[in-house]
Amino acid sequence: MPLTINAERLWNALMTLARIGATEKGGVCRLALTDLDKQGRDLVVSWAREMGCSVRIDAIGNIFMRRAGRNALLPAVSTGSHIDTQPTGGKFDGNYGVLAGLEVIGVLNDHNIETEHPIEVCVWTNEEGSRFVPVMMGSGVYAGAFTLEHALAQRDTKGVSVGEALRAIGYAGDSAPQIPKCYFETHIEQGPVLEDANVPIGIVTGALGQRWYDVTFTGMEAHAGPTPMRLRKDALIPAAQLVQAVNAIALSEQPNARGTVGFVDVFPNSRNVIPGRVKMSVDLRHADDAGLLRMDAALRAQAAEIAAKGGVQLEISQVVYFAPTSFTPRLVDVVHSAAETLGYPSQKIVSGAGHDAVYVANVAPAAMIFIPCKDGISHNEIEDALPAHITMGANVLLHAMLAEAEQL
Amino acid sequence: MPLTINAERLWNALMTLARIGATEKGGVCRLALTDLDKQGRDLVVSWAREMGCSVRIDAIGNIFMRRAGRNALLPAVSTGSHIDTQPTGGKFDGNYGVLAGLEVIGVLNDHNIETEHPIEVCVWTNEEGSRFVPVMMGSGVYAGAFTLEHALAQRDTKGVSVGEALRAIGYAGDSAPQIPKCYFETHIEQGPVLEDANVPIGIVTGALGQRWYDVTFTGMEAHAGPTPMRLRKDALIPAAQLVQAVNAIALSEQPNARGTVGFVDVFPNSRNVIPGRVKMSVDLRHADDAGLLRMDAALRAQAAEIAAKGGVQLEISQVVYFAPTSFTPRLVDVVHSAAETLGYPSQKIVSGAGHDAVYVANVAPAAMIFIPCKDGISHNEIEDALPAHITMGANVLLHAMLAEAEQL
Repeated sequence: MPLTINAERLWNALMTLARIGATEKGGVCRLALTDLDKQGRDLVVSWAREMGCSVRIDAIGNIFMRRAGRNALLPAVSTGSHIDTQPTGGKFDGNYGVLAGLEVIGVLNDHNIETEHPIEVCVWTNEEGSRFVPVMMGSGVYAGAFTLEHALAQRDTKGVSVGEALRAIGYAGDSAPQIPKCYFETHIEQGPVLEDANVPIGIVTGALGQRWYDVTFTGMEAHAGPTPMRLRKDALIPAAQLVQAVNAIALSEQPNARGTVGFVDVFPNSRNVIPGRVKMSVDLRHADDAGLLRMDAALRAQAAEIAAKGGVQLEISQVVYFAPTSFTPRLVDVVHSAAETLGYPSQKIVSGAGHDAVYVANVAPAAMIFIPCKDGISHNEIEDALPAHITMGANVLLHAMLAEAEQL
Repeated sequence: MPLTINAERLWNALMTLARIGATEKGGVCRLALTDLDKQGRDLVVSWAREMGCSVRIDAIGNIFMRRAGRNALLPAVSTGSHIDTQPTGGKFDGNYGVLAGLEVIGVLNDHNIETEHPIEVCVWTNEEGSRFVPVMMGSGVYAGAFTLEHALAQRDTKGVSVGEALRAIGYAGDSAPQIPKCYFETHIEQGPVLEDANVPIGIVTGALGQRWYDVTFTGMEAHAGPTPMRLRKDALIPAAQLVQAVNAIALSEQPNARGTVGFVDVFPNSRNVIPGRVKMSVDLRHADDAGLLRMDAALRAQAAEIAAKGGVQLEISQVVYFAPTSFTPRLVDVVHSAAETLGYPSQKIVSGAGHDAVYVANVAPAAMIFIPCKDGISHNEIEDALPAHITMGANVLLHAMLAEAEQL
């Protein structure tokens, strides 16, 4: 029988942490660097200390909880995620990755298992980006995606800076960042693929690259009644055409491409006025950079053609770029072997969303483990995951970490 | 030389009335039944009294300013419009129709011209519907489109009723409505047709029928990243298809049909979330009822097909219906003859918007005279019209009214 985690203890830890910021609808609202975030951090840190871990905090408030290995000079085998949530967040997004890591330490303690490498669990600051942008702030600073100074200077809508909020909750640390041997992250999928395939374990091979755009079509607003069709410059017609073009562009690059228009702002948005201006977002994602560039070129060409045909002005600008990430093949294999050791069905999957692991992959070998979530829903108070899947994902993490940490 | 109006006096009257509620951008904000509306009404009534008119007010606040004819038993030859404006309204919409009518009386006085029939100028209450719905309230009550009690009970967003507002400004009258021999209304076109054709006078033959709809597509909101294209229920895709379908339906019924989606509400309207619900308006207009019914059937069939194909729920409900109006052919000919007498180029035109004349046409022979407005723009502070066109439209009104009133 392979070693397994204590399923009840992990589930109880998840439910206990979920009480901090619990919402009436069964979700969690625990925004980054709030007093509730402090309470959550304090609870997690207290559990780690009870397990005998040493705890370090860095300047952006990332928490590193370490179980010593036999050789203190070796880099840690690391895991983690985040415990901040969306305003209408769930119990599992992020929290699962942190508490599954602590449960790995718990089960090693239970069985007095020593490892050559230290085991470390990270809590990354402000992954969600709901209160402060950019998202994935803690792991982004850690991995050098942007500077500490930039992150500390960001302000919430009330004018409070990240630096002020960190000091206010007592999580402005001074520990120097250390690079681990490798980094694993368990997470709910946040999509419907594993549930649809009825597979409990996703072996995450990488994350889609992302290009986000702001698009504006400008025509001329006019009365819907007196203005004949032939004399209109209706900005909504090209916008509607672009919605369909974005969909078609993504469909032409399947399976690992996405195209979404999530935001539309119509001006003046009155039922009997021809829209004079439509602002919209475009979100393109692809597993490889060449594909993402093909999508970018198709978007720009089709938007220009649509605007010219409709006699309207076009503005298009890229506002976000995340390069596609390939997780370290050797580490992906370690995750796959762990699932096989445990006899769990698994399938390879590409993450459509960003995760702290995507930034950490810039500085250390990284891989992720996904479990299904109900109806693919997250960032929602009805976010849910089956206890059996929670357990299975943590068991895969346990065996992957043990393999890397060299169980003695 | 045919008789003509005093162009300078009419222009000055327009500019003087436009000072009441003048906006910084050169427009007018004089919402129905406000203190500014009272000031505007008082000014217009004072001018009418100076011209020797008798003034009656009815229970919905419509003002009837009458120049006596030789035979007091004959019904009036009537004209008018409204002086309430949109929040960002212009100087001409409505005001022109009222002041052109007063100018007709002014020029008859100048030349001591008697008519067999009385001449009457009406100011209809709350045509715009910006503060209180329904629109065209005063003429609607007058013509029996809805009851006086219904209109008086309507409230603005602050809870003030029409009845209260009428009493507050002293325009809750008790004059019994009288049916005129006929009714003319001069108005800026509010569309680009005359300007585009370079024709100063539009002989309005009728008004488009209107059917307005609320449409909702409901899919399932989900993360744009983790949700593959094949597992989406994106409510924006069918909404975009319906925008194009509405356009195509209108194009298939040219020249006297319109189809407009002016309002779109996307939920949750976040750039990386697949839209779960889209609410949108549809505004269909057609010159005849059979055509409008064809458009209605096409809209419902295509919306249902689009929803079924997209795997989303559809709700569609009609929220407004105005029947197409044909103005009285004899009276349309009178307008046309007046333009010919004056040697003004004219063309027949169908009004795409509603006007008080459309309701009055239910109880008396009616016709309208359009003049161009700059770039077809109205309901906007930059609404503009050329003094030459203002003059020409009023001259056509003068001769049409004289023909009906039987100049002695």
